[in-house]
Amino acid sequence: MTQKKRSERETLPQKAGKLIVELGDKIYTQLSNLEPPAVSIPSRSIDNIVFDERLQQYVLGHKSIRRGFSNVRGAKGLAQLLWVAYVANELIKSDQVTTLRDLYYTSLNEKMLEIKEQAETDSQVEDLEAILSVPRETFNIIPHDRGTAFGRLVLEYTIKGFQGNRVDLMSHPDGVSIGPALAQARFVSSDSNFVLVVEKHAVFIQLIREKLHERFGALLIETGGQASRAARILIRRLNKELGLPVYILTDADPWGMHIALVIISGSAKSAHIKDLATPSAKWLGFWATDIEKYKVPSLVLNDVDYKRLEELKKDPRYNDKFFRAQIEWFMRKRKKAELEAFSSKNTTIGVTYLANTYLPEKLRELGAT
Amino acid sequence: MTQKKRSERETLPQKAGKLIVELGDKIYTQLSNLEPPAVSIPSRSIDNIVFDERLQQYVLGHKSIRRGFSNVRGAKGLAQLLWVAYVANELIKSDQVTTLRDLYYTSLNEKMLEIKEQAETDSQVEDLEAILSVPRETFNIIPHDRGTAFGRLVLEYTIKGFQGNRVDLMSHPDGVSIGPALAQARFVSSDSNFVLVVEKHAVFIQLIREKLHERFGALLIETGGQASRAARILIRRLNKELGLPVYILTDADPWGMHIALVIISGSAKSAHIKDLATPSAKWLGFWATDIEKYKVPSLVLNDVDYKRLEELKKDPRYNDKFFRAQIEWFMRKRKKAELEAFSSKNTTIGVTYLANTYLPEKLRELGAT
Repeated sequence: MTQKKRSERETLPQKAGKLIVELGDKIYTQLSNLEPPAVSIPSRSIDNIVFDERLQQYVLGHKSIRRGFSNVRGAKGLAQLLWVAYVANELIKSDQVTTLRDLYYTSLNEKMLEIKEQAETDSQVEDLEAILSVPRETFNIIPHDRGTAFGRLVLEYTIKGFQGNRVDLMSHPDGVSIGPALAQARFVSSDSNFVLVVEKHAVFIQLIREKLHERFGALLIETGGQASRAARILIRRLNKELGLPVYILTDADPWGMHIALVIISGSAKSAHIKDLATPSAKWLGFWATDIEKYKVPSLVLNDVDYKRLEELKKDPRYNDKFFRAQIEWFMRKRKKAELEAFSSKNTTIGVTYLANTYLPEKLRELGAT
Repeated sequence: MTQKKRSERETLPQKAGKLIVELGDKIYTQLSNLEPPAVSIPSRSIDNIVFDERLQQYVLGHKSIRRGFSNVRGAKGLAQLLWVAYVANELIKSDQVTTLRDLYYTSLNEKMLEIKEQAETDSQVEDLEAILSVPRETFNIIPHDRGTAFGRLVLEYTIKGFQGNRVDLMSHPDGVSIGPALAQARFVSSDSNFVLVVEKHAVFIQLIREKLHERFGALLIETGGQASRAARILIRRLNKELGLPVYILTDADPWGMHIALVIISGSAKSAHIKDLATPSAKWLGFWATDIEKYKVPSLVLNDVDYKRLEELKKDPRYNDKFFRAQIEWFMRKRKKAELEAFSSKNTTIGVTYLANTYLPEKLRELGAT
């Protein structure tokens, strides 16, 4: 292995910590020059969120707001922002983590910040994300994560007490939990061929028992419904850093399709953060059009499903021939189906049609194998 | 280590497989003797579910039903039951797993079983649990699990491809996912002092970063709300097989208290299964009475909380002086509080009051340290 450059050996929190110190330096310089302190923050207001056709994801436009001492509200906001940046930097230095809820409660100690409700500290955290252009996990303010990973990947954790140990994502057959440490770990090596993301925990467990990691070189990720931010960061990094193609397996319904789309294109709410989406990821199935092609038992779309499809139809992220055709099929046929429906085609107990027929066919169809 | 007896080296699915074969033998003998085949099944009807004061959990009474060829409905039911037992045995032999939903779809292939809806196959699975007196995970019909584990425990997985490898629950700092393989793994050794169950993922991650495993010898389990069956099996086994005391940490509200109680006493719905409850487990906190004792910010109980407390008050599992006092406190003061509220008492960023003051005090109070 070639010697890594020093910058590449820095952990994501260390990089975020440097950006926070730079922000502090800027304020310090302003104060030293007897200028009123101020920072420029990319605007997160709805009129500044635009869909980038080339990137196929939401990004912020060019508007920014200036937060400074021109009025009392601005001064209070700047003080709150700098306090959040201070907390983040202390957390990074001590390798500790906190949550948005904890941060709000912690802020109650700082009477001078005049914080009345959690929406205020939450908003300051999002502003700090927008300024640094990194997700808050990176500066140790973590969400409640979900998700599990399993497969041929050797990695090194970077948090204190775990650095330098090389561990394998194959060692635990129920998988390893995806949290901030895994999302930020260094990838050492992998002979996996692609990443297979599945929406359901029991399907994930079944695919491990069916040895998809050995038979196809699949690195399996389970999201437990909509993928958490840590899972989306991990998926993106596996794609960008290791060059692994990403395929997503969900139920054939609007909710499953949208799980795939958020992994591919991100969400409007996180337009201010890069590094969450994986534009080259592909929805592998269970496609609407596969319901009849594979002749599996289907269910009738209910009103909530139908309303959801009408929303998705107007969503710029679905402005793509393939996805439009899927939405139209759902609406015309008024059918949906679950991954479990493939079990109606099992002929031998313990040998699933899903893992032994459907998945191999679809992986071939999309050029994965 | 002393040589283990052969019976102890059998995995839980292997034991369940033997019980299934015994059931099959019984039917075979009946048929050989030209008797009409029949099985006796412990009744799961509500009038046969009783609260055992000594065990402090729900168990089945002495009623049983006989399912046999005395009428058409009985004959169909027996055929369905034996088909489910056959599927379970095939799954155990091939080390594969399935879910209730998959099982229903698979049953659609067997036209002679005349299965119309999933409630029928679900009920047969519960009857098989009652006959064998083991949870369905044990015969490889798995639920959608949740939960994560971390701490000083060396174990050996027993499923194919993983046998014999000794792995450590300390190797992944976001924890290891709790599924059927972990719930059934053999425990090799542990120098943990107790099990600490926490309801929230982010708190679990924070306690790992605060090194509770090193400082107190805590083996940490996160449940993600109500503990899944796999998590409850794992907690019980850690208590029974390794003799580790179990402490449960939740929010101070009726929902958190009930998470603790289900781990301690189980539920009426699983009265037909032994080995899910941990009667000696203790609710460590966050107690109702700790809200004022520790002077943390509280929230007002809403109507849904209050209604839930009125239900719990009538529940025989709460017929205990300590729990009654907690319920009364909640109802009288109409207050609740989250674990995150302890962050209002943090004085140094990165050093939480929860891990450094509250938990050590409570562990001492309950005799854990």
